[in-house]
Amino acid sequence: MASAVFGPATFCAVTGGSRGLGRSIAVLLAGRLGQGSRLVLTGRSLQGLQETKRQVEEKSPNQLEVKLVTGDLEDSAAHAAHFCDIFADAQQGTFKNALMIHNAATLGDGTKKASEHSDPQILTKYYAANLTSVITLTSKFMKIFPSTTVRRTVVNITSDSAINPLVNHSLYCSGKAARNMFFKVMAEEDPDVRVLSYSPGPLDTDMLHTVRSCGNKGVEDLLTSMESSGMILSPADSAEHLLNLLEKDTFQSGDFLDIFNFKY
Amino acid sequence: MASAVFGPATFCAVTGGSRGLGRSIAVLLAGRLGQGSRLVLTGRSLQGLQETKRQVEEKSPNQLEVKLVTGDLEDSAAHAAHFCDIFADAQQGTFKNALMIHNAATLGDGTKKASEHSDPQILTKYYAANLTSVITLTSKFMKIFPSTTVRRTVVNITSDSAINPLVNHSLYCSGKAARNMFFKVMAEEDPDVRVLSYSPGPLDTDMLHTVRSCGNKGVEDLLTSMESSGMILSPADSAEHLLNLLEKDTFQSGDFLDIFNFKY
Repeated sequence: MASAVFGPATFCAVTGGSRGLGRSIAVLLAGRLGQGSRLVLTGRSLQGLQETKRQVEEKSPNQLEVKLVTGDLEDSAAHAAHFCDIFADAQQGTFKNALMIHNAATLGDGTKKASEHSDPQILTKYYAANLTSVITLTSKFMKIFPSTTVRRTVVNITSDSAINPLVNHSLYCSGKAARNMFFKVMAEEDPDVRVLSYSPGPLDTDMLHTVRSCGNKGVEDLLTSMESSGMILSPADSAEHLLNLLEKDTFQSGDFLDIFNFKY
Repeated sequence: MASAVFGPATFCAVTGGSRGLGRSIAVLLAGRLGQGSRLVLTGRSLQGLQETKRQVEEKSPNQLEVKLVTGDLEDSAAHAAHFCDIFADAQQGTFKNALMIHNAATLGDGTKKASEHSDPQILTKYYAANLTSVITLTSKFMKIFPSTTVRRTVVNITSDSAINPLVNHSLYCSGKAARNMFFKVMAEEDPDVRVLSYSPGPLDTDMLHTVRSCGNKGVEDLLTSMESSGMILSPADSAEHLLNLLEKDTFQSGDFLDIFNFKY
């Protein structure tokens, strides 16, 4: 199913590709990316990335090049080298489409209230991993793929928590809110880039299990109730929805859409 | 005009007190704070703080103690010492009310598009000054004034730009959005603290003049049109509105209100 987004010779980088939603996006993309495409998967766990690569190659009927890049986004001094690896050998003209999917995220310390975050170093690391790395990686992506050579799409994986406060997760909420606004501004400034903030819904992933065990009864009860109502989705279903949104390509650049088709 | 908020023995810290809205808030507070109160003003410019202090003392009929603390919020390693100065000698029991007003803010480089922010160090400094310092200063405030001893209010000076993208100001927009969400979460977690995000409107300040001269014609035209419609307000009028909101005390903790009484 070739399209303007996933047609021949697409470069696609997915951060946080070692598990969960990132893995599902990678595997589903594999079946859609055309000949000459490259899929770059980043994450902290090489083992996780290798398993994603195995699933991608199993799925893909194409000669799809899969590249793995490990790195820890908390260390902003290491970002430059990390990002060079992601885009190594992405010469101008090789790709017709370029897709950057910012999926990596951390929750921060889910046992702390907002008013208990007193360590600037921990905060700096949190926002390096979840905010500033996203900004500088986007900047690198835009430099590697100038507008004249390639159709560009940037996806910001966000969360309902960017809008609705989640107790014990003030860093997660604030980081997601900051990213959404950043990409809203970018969409205004660069109308030739397709920018989408996508909230994947509450997914059955390690991250959700961590949120659930944060020790706050209200949060636990909320998730238990969502689970019994069938609201917890599989990463594969949510990844499919995202890829369909991108293929359909009718969203307005800068939109914040979620799995339930709710527009914020 | 004593009240629960500005009655006798109030501790109040205002960041960015050397000019603009911070100065106006300080001067207007001066006429309202009761005996035994302390007003701590922080900022980068000692000269500016001294002028604010002069205006405060001219206005205040009380024995109001005004303390000046200079510091640069971009340097997170210096925050701990800076914050110790702000709360020095604020012994438990001295104050009945405690008010923390996060007013300091920087715009970031208004000549850069979102996709041009490539330097992690500049971003780290930006968010240190506009996000992480606000978080750790709030944490310090909460430690100095435990709930059992004092009525606490935290004010986050925000902006319409937390919601509506302002071209060339992606850092400003994203930082304000992050702060709003952070304080929304805090309001949920600490119901005994009064938390308000207040958007002061477009004010006739140095900051607005900087925004106006960012080089983007759309932004310049917008501000010119706002000016000719009389929408640019004086810092004093907006500060008065904020203090009235706090005195009235009918807002819901966590609210994001603006000068035009629009609730986001």
